[in-house]
Amino acid sequence: MYTGGYAGKILRINLTDKTAKEEALPLEVSKNFIGGAGLGIKYLFDELQPHVDPLGPENKLIISVGPFTGSSIPSTSRLNITSKSPQTNAVGSALSGGYFPAEMKFAGYDALIVEGKAEKPTYIWIKDSEVNFRNAAKVWGLKTSDCQQIIKDDLKDQNIRCMCIGPAGENLSKMACIINERRAAGRKGLGAVMGSKNLKAIAIRGTGTVAVADQEKFKSAKKAMTDSMKASPVLYPVFSKVGSSCAFDATTDLGIFSSKNWTGTGEFVPKDGIGLEAQGQAKVGHAHCYGCPVGCGQLMLARKGSYAGILSEGPEFETQYAFGGQTGVDNLDAVIVADHLSDELGLDTISTGVTIGFAMELFEKGILTMEDTGGLELNFGNHETMVKLVQMIAFRQGIGDLLADGVKAAAEKIGKGSEKFAMHVKGLELPAYDVRGAKAHALNYATAYPGADHNKGYAAQEIFGMPIPYEVDRLGYEGKGKLCKWNQDVQCATADCPTICSFVVLMALLHNGTDVVADLMEGLTGLSYTPDEIYEVGERVNNLCRAFNVREGFTRSDDTLPERLLTEPIPGGPSKGQLISKEDLKQMLDEYYTARGWDQTNGVPTREKLTELGLGYVADQLKL
Amino acid sequence: MYTGGYAGKILRINLTDKTAKEEALPLEVSKNFIGGAGLGIKYLFDELQPHVDPLGPENKLIISVGPFTGSSIPSTSRLNITSKSPQTNAVGSALSGGYFPAEMKFAGYDALIVEGKAEKPTYIWIKDSEVNFRNAAKVWGLKTSDCQQIIKDDLKDQNIRCMCIGPAGENLSKMACIINERRAAGRKGLGAVMGSKNLKAIAIRGTGTVAVADQEKFKSAKKAMTDSMKASPVLYPVFSKVGSSCAFDATTDLGIFSSKNWTGTGEFVPKDGIGLEAQGQAKVGHAHCYGCPVGCGQLMLARKGSYAGILSEGPEFETQYAFGGQTGVDNLDAVIVADHLSDELGLDTISTGVTIGFAMELFEKGILTMEDTGGLELNFGNHETMVKLVQMIAFRQGIGDLLADGVKAAAEKIGKGSEKFAMHVKGLELPAYDVRGAKAHALNYATAYPGADHNKGYAAQEIFGMPIPYEVDRLGYEGKGKLCKWNQDVQCATADCPTICSFVVLMALLHNGTDVVADLMEGLTGLSYTPDEIYEVGERVNNLCRAFNVREGFTRSDDTLPERLLTEPIPGGPSKGQLISKEDLKQMLDEYYTARGWDQTNGVPTREKLTELGLGYVADQLKL
Repeated sequence: MYTGGYAGKILRINLTDKTAKEEALPLEVSKNFIGGAGLGIKYLFDELQPHVDPLGPENKLIISVGPFTGSSIPSTSRLNITSKSPQTNAVGSALSGGYFPAEMKFAGYDALIVEGKAEKPTYIWIKDSEVNFRNAAKVWGLKTSDCQQIIKDDLKDQNIRCMCIGPAGENLSKMACIINERRAAGRKGLGAVMGSKNLKAIAIRGTGTVAVADQEKFKSAKKAMTDSMKASPVLYPVFSKVGSSCAFDATTDLGIFSSKNWTGTGEFVPKDGIGLEAQGQAKVGHAHCYGCPVGCGQLMLARKGSYAGILSEGPEFETQYAFGGQTGVDNLDAVIVADHLSDELGLDTISTGVTIGFAMELFEKGILTMEDTGGLELNFGNHETMVKLVQMIAFRQGIGDLLADGVKAAAEKIGKGSEKFAMHVKGLELPAYDVRGAKAHALNYATAYPGADHNKGYAAQEIFGMPIPYEVDRLGYEGKGKLCKWNQDVQCATADCPTICSFVVLMALLHNGTDVVADLMEGLTGLSYTPDEIYEVGERVNNLCRAFNVREGFTRSDDTLPERLLTEPIPGGPSKGQLISKEDLKQMLDEYYTARGWDQTNGVPTREKLTELGLGYVADQLKL
Repeated sequence: MYTGGYAGKILRINLTDKTAKEEALPLEVSKNFIGGAGLGIKYLFDELQPHVDPLGPENKLIISVGPFTGSSIPSTSRLNITSKSPQTNAVGSALSGGYFPAEMKFAGYDALIVEGKAEKPTYIWIKDSEVNFRNAAKVWGLKTSDCQQIIKDDLKDQNIRCMCIGPAGENLSKMACIINERRAAGRKGLGAVMGSKNLKAIAIRGTGTVAVADQEKFKSAKKAMTDSMKASPVLYPVFSKVGSSCAFDATTDLGIFSSKNWTGTGEFVPKDGIGLEAQGQAKVGHAHCYGCPVGCGQLMLARKGSYAGILSEGPEFETQYAFGGQTGVDNLDAVIVADHLSDELGLDTISTGVTIGFAMELFEKGILTMEDTGGLELNFGNHETMVKLVQMIAFRQGIGDLLADGVKAAAEKIGKGSEKFAMHVKGLELPAYDVRGAKAHALNYATAYPGADHNKGYAAQEIFGMPIPYEVDRLGYEGKGKLCKWNQDVQCATADCPTICSFVVLMALLHNGTDVVADLMEGLTGLSYTPDEIYEVGERVNNLCRAFNVREGFTRSDDTLPERLLTEPIPGGPSKGQLISKEDLKQMLDEYYTARGWDQTNGVPTREKLTELGLGYVADQLKL
């Protein structure tokens, strides 16, 4: 292993005693975890006591970028936020792009570890090595765009980049996300963790650059990556034009665009109102992250009635699913507004849309009444109510308070059998893709370490027919255990840790990503890897995350899917009749655990596997 | 006269043929008009043909700063926009602060003269001497904050400053204003002029500085100004704390906070809901213009129900009057939201609030029916309808289309005697201050060149008892002609032309403003003036504006007040029973014309007066 000049740096910030200190990032950690999600879980596992309250001062918030972030490698201004999730009690890990990640690297940091709890609303202002704790009274209660602008104005520097929470995070909604610019680190309620620490925002400005260990190797590795990007049949030709909406037609054609709290798949498809044609009309332009030539952000403008004039970066495909499909709202303007409000109030769009869909089903079934809703008509398709609920959830107004922590928490409070309509895994609401018609997705939702997360092992093979690593039948079960493991590990190794945008990885680097990352790492940092060693980083990170969850008490029984998907077939459309029986799920899980080298009975990593991955100390901790 | 190094510069921009050229600002023009509003009317009068369509390509938009803008003189990052007003056909002259003015000076310009009409939506991007015409498709339809941010993102420079219109300007609402940052150049529909030119925004970035002719003189002049600011009993002790809201208690105490379309003064005062206590609770912090130590901007946050989380810079006092008083809405959150929406949609708050109040009175009188309003309940006090109407006006939706051009135009369309409820002078809606109880204000509203404008000759003496130039009885008529002339000229000379913030002038420089400006001019530019010569600039500008209006056909008969103020006394409160009879108005006008040296019959400046002011060529043009 290279032991030369590469020197990562961590800033440890304690809100309780208002201190900040720099620490070297040990070379061994860089080598074994690369960056991003890898760094995040390494520090979270090592430093968190088991069973701490996710909303207590003992929880930590780890914001980590990758070694490539801020360099000239395209599409790498990405960050990962890791914390114990208040929604799931499992590892909460969320990605975002934008400009903050690059700025954080310019300030010199690979990770910020935020600890403790501020006495009163605070924001952190980091200018290179200077760290200030500032009174956030002026921005507390503000929407995310106002918060960012007013911090820039107050600090008299328009080049500052900010991440912040909205009112939802302040109000400890477990669906709260963290926003930088117009980008969200969504899911898992990490915004509530910030809120619980009285931390409104982190403002950052850096003047440094990213050093390159070997210019020749770096250039050639970068060329291999950009060549792959150019060669991709989808990245520039399709994805850069329509963004993640490219999944809209793919999923509706396959009959797996799930709708109406997963009761309507194949029968209700909001294609006329929110499909690509409507999106094309609403679109005013693109948005780019720092240093990204793709520019997948779709700026869409609502134009009708009371929604007119509201702009959103997005809605992305997952938001179309959540606010369009799940709520039965075939009205793009309303979806744009709900998306805009979610970004401004700091709510995760997937969880919020699914939770509103859940409430709508309960209302239609009479489990929630007009009395419960305070007079709101909560039927599927009522776009005005949907938009109102976003606001009510963020501020915990009326029934919004009941819904503000997501479907699992709401079902526990409502009772009356509502849990069976709560579409989540481990407490995290299901993303798009009716997985009854895409089995590797189903297995991934059941096993991914944060709960149902499409970003932690997306089975592109089933949706877009990409023959990587081999052709698959989306409806078959055979081989899905291995495929799921491969997707989880390779995406973690090539996207989440380095941190290259997952879209670029999925569309252009699935076939050679480990080679590309190995070469880039050697060129940029001087640390050398074989492609297999890169892959192994992904496996190591997935195992460490699993170990975290095991330590928190998760077992095989948590690797499951909502009852509905196991018992009710898709009612119509091209995937009509599909479901996943418990037996089918068991078969996939068995294969998955085998592929992972985990114990079949409880889904716990074996000592052998952990030791093989250099995680022997973890086996000790888990008393394996 | 000094003929040395001072060299102002103008950028002439033609949208029709996409050209831009720099021109020297003649020293004589600098000397005689100083800058700001002075430059604006000088070029507008000289270059506009009479009777051009204000919304046609022949109209021009002149954006001018002052010689002090961008220097270290405090509170001078101000600009003036001059154009022929589509609402009045008179001189439209509007002031704004913020950061754009200083940036414009850093780019090297004293004035931008925008001519012609772009073929399609365009924005202008000025970087020092580089001028680009850019496609505005990406920002057309956007709210003003989104527009500004997306232009910065697109040009990859967060230090750019933008002025732009919102949807209201695009839709040619004659109440549309022009926004830079969160600041408005309001009144007179200048946003519609931008819209009519297909001009969405002007983005500017400069790297220059402002030269100082004589450092010693400059320093001592600046010290005289800052000493006056410190010595003011109101500027820092009161105004910097509560902003223009300091007029709230003053006017309610005097019983001249006008309400409910001027029917309710003294009877309805929205003090509980929107008064200083409520404002204090809503306030989260201050906002400053570039280089201003006062920071009068009050950032207020709505916190309840569907309004929660909406932030506004303001509402300022005039907006409290318009959206609170005129509509009978005693709900600060709703006023904050209406203010926020107006800024975002690019609507003048005074005109919009007064127009909504007008519609409410018509609705209560049955002149507008539920059929006309499309089912909206338009009663006084209905805050939800008020907020909805702001949106509907900007987008010309439903009854919003009828109201979008202000009360005069709406009354002409509605008929049925509604004109007598239309509270405007020359087509411009009345600002705050029930002038029946403040006679110099009344005379100023009747005679100010843009129509009813509180910024063009504010009689602070009547409201705050400032003994400048002499003590006055607010209810008396004697001497008001002279006082009005003095206020108009001195404020023009010391605030609008140089361009020093009018609030600073009113609160700290009324007693010595002409001295201060004379010394500052000599220090900064080397041009020397006596204080009387500074005063004369104000008189010159007011005469030239009057000449512009005369050339457009305005006569003495236009110097009047709405019928209601001349016939209906204030119904209650400390000023109960006050009105201004036609005879009283005539008496004040006679005195005013005499003080001005204007013809008594038609209110036209005499050749003698014009010649005395160096405007002989104007007398020729008017064939006097």
